[in-house]
Amino acid sequence: MAVSTQTNLAETNRLEAFSDGVFAIAITLLVLELHSPELEEGQRLWPALVNEWPQFAAYLTSFAILGIMWVNHHSMFRQIKRADRGLMFLNLLLLLWVTLLPFPTSMFAEHLEDDSINASVAAAVYSANLTLAAIAFSAIWWHVLRNHLVDHDMNKSQVRKSLIRYSFGTVIYAACIGVSFISAQVTLLIVFLLALYYGFEQIRTRGETG
Amino acid sequence: MAVSTQTNLAETNRLEAFSDGVFAIAITLLVLELHSPELEEGQRLWPALVNEWPQFAAYLTSFAILGIMWVNHHSMFRQIKRADRGLMFLNLLLLLWVTLLPFPTSMFAEHLEDDSINASVAAAVYSANLTLAAIAFSAIWWHVLRNHLVDHDMNKSQVRKSLIRYSFGTVIYAACIGVSFISAQVTLLIVFLLALYYGFEQIRTRGETG
Amino acid sequence: MAVSTQTNLAETNRLEAFSDGVFAIAITLLVLELHSPELEEGQRLWPALVNEWPQFAAYLTSFAILGIMWVNHHSMFRQIKRADRGLMFLNLLLLLWVTLLPFPTSMFAEHLEDDSINASVAAAVYSANLTLAAIAFSAIWWHVLRNHLVDHDMNKSQVRKSLIRYSFGTVIYAACIGVSFISAQVTLLIVFLLALYYGFEQIRTRGETG
Amino acid sequence: MAVSTQTNLAETNRLEAFSDGVFAIAITLLVLELHSPELEEGQRLWPALVNEWPQFAAYLTSFAILGIMWVNHHSMFRQIKRADRGLMFLNLLLLLWVTLLPFPTSMFAEHLEDDSINASVAAAVYSANLTLAAIAFSAIWWHVLRNHLVDHDMNKSQVRKSLIRYSFGTVIYAACIGVSFISAQVTLLIVFLLALYYGFEQIRTRGETG
Repeated sequence: MAVSTQTNLAETNRLEAFSDGVFAIAITLLVLELHSPELEEGQRLWPALVNEWPQFAAYLTSFAILGIMWVNHHSMFRQIKRADRGLMFLNLLLLLWVTLLPFPTSMFAEHLEDDSINASVAAAVYSANLTLAAIAFSAIWWHVLRNHLVDHDMNKSQVRKSLIRYSFGTVIYAACIGVSFISAQVTLLIVFLLALYYGFEQIRTRGETG
Repeated sequence: MAVSTQTNLAETNRLEAFSDGVFAIAITLLVLELHSPELEEGQRLWPALVNEWPQFAAYLTSFAILGIMWVNHHSMFRQIKRADRGLMFLNLLLLLWVTLLPFPTSMFAEHLEDDSINASVAAAVYSANLTLAAIAFSAIWWHVLRNHLVDHDMNKSQVRKSLIRYSFGTVIYAACIGVSFISAQVTLLIVFLLALYYGFEQIRTRGETG
Repeated sequence: MAVSTQTNLAETNRLEAFSDGVFAIAITLLVLELHSPELEEGQRLWPALVNEWPQFAAYLTSFAILGIMWVNHHSMFRQIKRADRGLMFLNLLLLLWVTLLPFPTSMFAEHLEDDSINASVAAAVYSANLTLAAIAFSAIWWHVLRNHLVDHDMNKSQVRKSLIRYSFGTVIYAACIGVSFISAQVTLLIVFLLALYYGFEQIRTRGETG
Repeated sequence: MAVSTQTNLAETNRLEAFSDGVFAIAITLLVLELHSPELEEGQRLWPALVNEWPQFAAYLTSFAILGIMWVNHHSMFRQIKRADRGLMFLNLLLLLWVTLLPFPTSMFAEHLEDDSINASVAAAVYSANLTLAAIAFSAIWWHVLRNHLVDHDMNKSQVRKSLIRYSFGTVIYAACIGVSFISAQVTLLIVFLLALYYGFEQIRTRGETG
């Protein structure tokens, strides 16, 4: 019995190590989407660089989101003591959306200032990626609770509270898909502020409970 | 004696950590093969994006395969307690095919809709890469059994069963090389379904034995 | 209480592992900014390669800086025994500047030999990136001292000394922003020498205290 | 005293983890230098792919070298029990040449079939990179022996033998710089065979000693 627990703990460790690797690589690969502006003869670098602000805004936002996601993943897995097959596959599903993010980030930056519908489509695809990641997070938590993989029993009120908290993120990101068709730039701003809020909100939550 | 065992265990750990790193990087690098469609003046983003479906289908398939391979590698190495030189080199051989995969993935996506023989060649090269990875997996398992590197003795029936299971993957992927010359798109579908099947099949197998 | 300490130690470990991953990836991605010179018919490779010296100088400098930063990060976190939310976010802020570095490195190399103001702008952006990283380092250390996250109490003189040491780096890098407008090439040289100095200076410091 | 040893062991662990990360990333980034051949209307993929053999030969060789280097690094650090500052910087020097390797690999592949001197220059730069890595390996081992950082005392004969073994690699790679000016393709072949030999030779050596 003790051996079995030991083994399962080890499995969680390697799952976390693999996830950490994927998060670390995805967050670092974002920089490959930043390109030094191509200047014509006599053109100045600084204004050309300022003109590329959508690239930097999208970079910063995706960095913040992946950073917060990593912190959340870390917090969640500190509570998970046993890993089963289902958890491994749901975690892979989450990592799919994590590794994909540099692609819509780059597309979002490219079209952020377009006058056409393309800016909205790029913003909506970006928001959809985040929504899918949030759903994967909820699914992991749901699976973990249903299969008693956490290290302590939670009462019904705590369970409901924690599930609402994850659903909240999903709803907001899904709403961003709609907002994209009003303004791509507002979408980016909301997503960025949401990342900041999530950071601070968690500090408060943990101050209460722990 | 105890010290020696300790040392060998440590060696397996570092071997696993290195392999995890390579899997995590390869699975994350796949996104670099996705490119935002280049639009002409007035062209719409959404249809151009939909038109790029082979890129996304190939991305998803390779992600699923590398994810399953990581899970398999993880399961296999949980049973391996000692690492010798031979294991290290066979593992490097497996990692060679793992790190190579983004290349045929990108080529497959590029030619998936070609009318010419090129679609079949790209599909065959992709299938050959997977076949070679499956062979490397079999070779590792064969080596591990022959040199008693597992943590427990298996009876003859279990050994035969496990070897047949690995050979099965090799045969299917090799068959995909042939299918490539009938239809590249069917090949992609088979490989994707096979990844899903392998995921679920293992859940069942482990439920039986452990 | 003991359990709680254990948990916090574990948290620092995963924070370090994630940071190590980001440092390792950022330092390795630098090579992607090196490009084989494109030769015209009959042009010789060697002189073309020598002509690309700014690429190699910038590569070497950024490698040295990221290497030293990793060593510093390592030394700093050896003294940190507990991680709180604030530390996690300040660490993410530091990693933001670490992952960004390949971008100004590439831009710096591209414009190092420009006659125009662009060389200075590129050098200033590069120096600003380093300044922001140095500020993040100081902020982490400040936060750690204020919240007693280190493993031992330092007396006032030691605290002041350590804070001055971190401020020193910030001031020098900030000064480099100014130097950029005198000479981009001198800026690169100063930054490179500073990396070497930091390496050797720390050896001396640690020889004294430990 | 016991605590101090513990601390130093931990330091070696993080040094190894960082190095493993860099090796894993460098070996995986090699694939980014492989490009699907650009076909003209009606051109066939297979012959175009075969025509790209220098890319694959260079990929395979660099993969084998980095793989062997990782195995060597692993073997060497298993014998090292304490890390000092000097070891950290010499290890960074080694990692500099490791992370750089994808660049000369790509350049070597590009010029392997050139009729001009460029093929030899590319081969010589590649060989020089390997020579510098071999020197860094020797320097690490020399430093480790001089500062008694290994876990056991070696007698003079063992020390001499181990130093000769590392020098041997350096001399061969340095000789390859010369061979480059006779034939670039022979150089690639020698380097590849050397990687295979190093793999097998070490198996024998370790069989003898323990």
